[in-house]
Amino acid sequence: MSALPINRAELEQIVRKVVYERVLTNVRGPAPTLVVHASARHAHLSREHLDQLFGPGYELTVDRELYQPGNFAAKETVTLIGPRSRLISNLRILGPLRNRSQVELAFTDAVSLGFENVPVRLSGDIDGTPGCFIMGPRGMAELKEGVIRAAIHVHMNPSEAAYYGVKHRDLMKLRVGGDAGLTFNRVHVRVDPTVRLNVHMDTDEANACGLHLAKEIELFRVGE
Amino acid sequence: MSALPINRAELEQIVRKVVYERVLTNVRGPAPTLVVHASARHAHLSREHLDQLFGPGYELTVDRELYQPGNFAAKETVTLIGPRSRLISNLRILGPLRNRSQVELAFTDAVSLGFENVPVRLSGDIDGTPGCFIMGPRGMAELKEGVIRAAIHVHMNPSEAAYYGVKHRDLMKLRVGGDAGLTFNRVHVRVDPTVRLNVHMDTDEANACGLHLAKEIELFRVGE
Repeated sequence: MSALPINRAELEQIVRKVVYERVLTNVRGPAPTLVVHASARHAHLSREHLDQLFGPGYELTVDRELYQPGNFAAKETVTLIGPRSRLISNLRILGPLRNRSQVELAFTDAVSLGFENVPVRLSGDIDGTPGCFIMGPRGMAELKEGVIRAAIHVHMNPSEAAYYGVKHRDLMKLRVGGDAGLTFNRVHVRVDPTVRLNVHMDTDEANACGLHLAKEIELFRVGE
Repeated sequence: MSALPINRAELEQIVRKVVYERVLTNVRGPAPTLVVHASARHAHLSREHLDQLFGPGYELTVDRELYQPGNFAAKETVTLIGPRSRLISNLRILGPLRNRSQVELAFTDAVSLGFENVPVRLSGDIDGTPGCFIMGPRGMAELKEGVIRAAIHVHMNPSEAAYYGVKHRDLMKLRVGGDAGLTFNRVHVRVDPTVRLNVHMDTDEANACGLHLAKEIELFRVGE
């Protein structure tokens, strides 16, 4: 045995590691189905702003249910007016209504509108972000703040979080293969019992990695 | 010595590795200055197409020298007409002229123009790529092929390639830190004695990683 280029302690350590990983794989069970979506620019509106834009008591019309239960793309769109009088028309509203209005743009959109400092934020975290004007068929609304570029994030339920060994607010990585292969190093984990496993990136990110062509996509814990 | 949890052979191996790395660092010398640029959509033209668009024998006017010696953004622009009669005006021409015309678009541009299958290619590698029409002040030119999304790449001279331990046509990785941190996993190495160390990415890639905000950028060999 002394001719082996490894000692007993090391050998035992390697065997333990292999056995442990095999056990872990069995515990983890099959990987949950990973769905990745590119979110085009859109707006979430408060009741107050919807009233100003579409008239008092107006209700959004569902155009298409989204992947996450209860969320939908509305038939209604608005016009977004940026800081240098440039605008984007047909900005889609996503429902349901929220407590605070919020506009999510890719940097490409932000640049074309003349916004200079749109920050990367998680949805809802809009304190101190730029504002904008929105025009609807019945009036104009001013958002004092709420224009963000949404940080790439992954929705998952607690059992999916357990599978990956992560918790709410952790960061994960997403590797996208293909000709334009890249790895997103800061994918924010959002755990909620009502959701389905789903990565949301914006159109810049989807276009950078060629998401429409990508075949190999892998979500993993930082450090793995 | 028998109480140490490591044997002599391993110890020697580790010492050799540490010493070797220290020597290598000294041999490598200081890191060359890494400059990363985002290339907006643009066209390279052949003599034949320039003649068709601007008149026989026309010469491009230098608007701005680019970072790579001899390359320039021309004052002249053209209109690019996509497959569904959508167009982009003011498409910048980059000089000097080339043997074959080529249009480089980000996927965002390609989608807005109605192109469906723009491939990711290295500059010049345009066989079998989509074509387009280009309109200039004196006429229209048809490119039978040449519309690509340029693959992210790094220009370097041979001594910079030696510093990184890479050669022409290798792939490297580029890690961009910050809120939208990501790693480009397939950065193509282009070695040429006349160039300066310089990564070229397109506007989708720059917007995805928030290049305008990024402070920490690192180019490294695959496997490091």
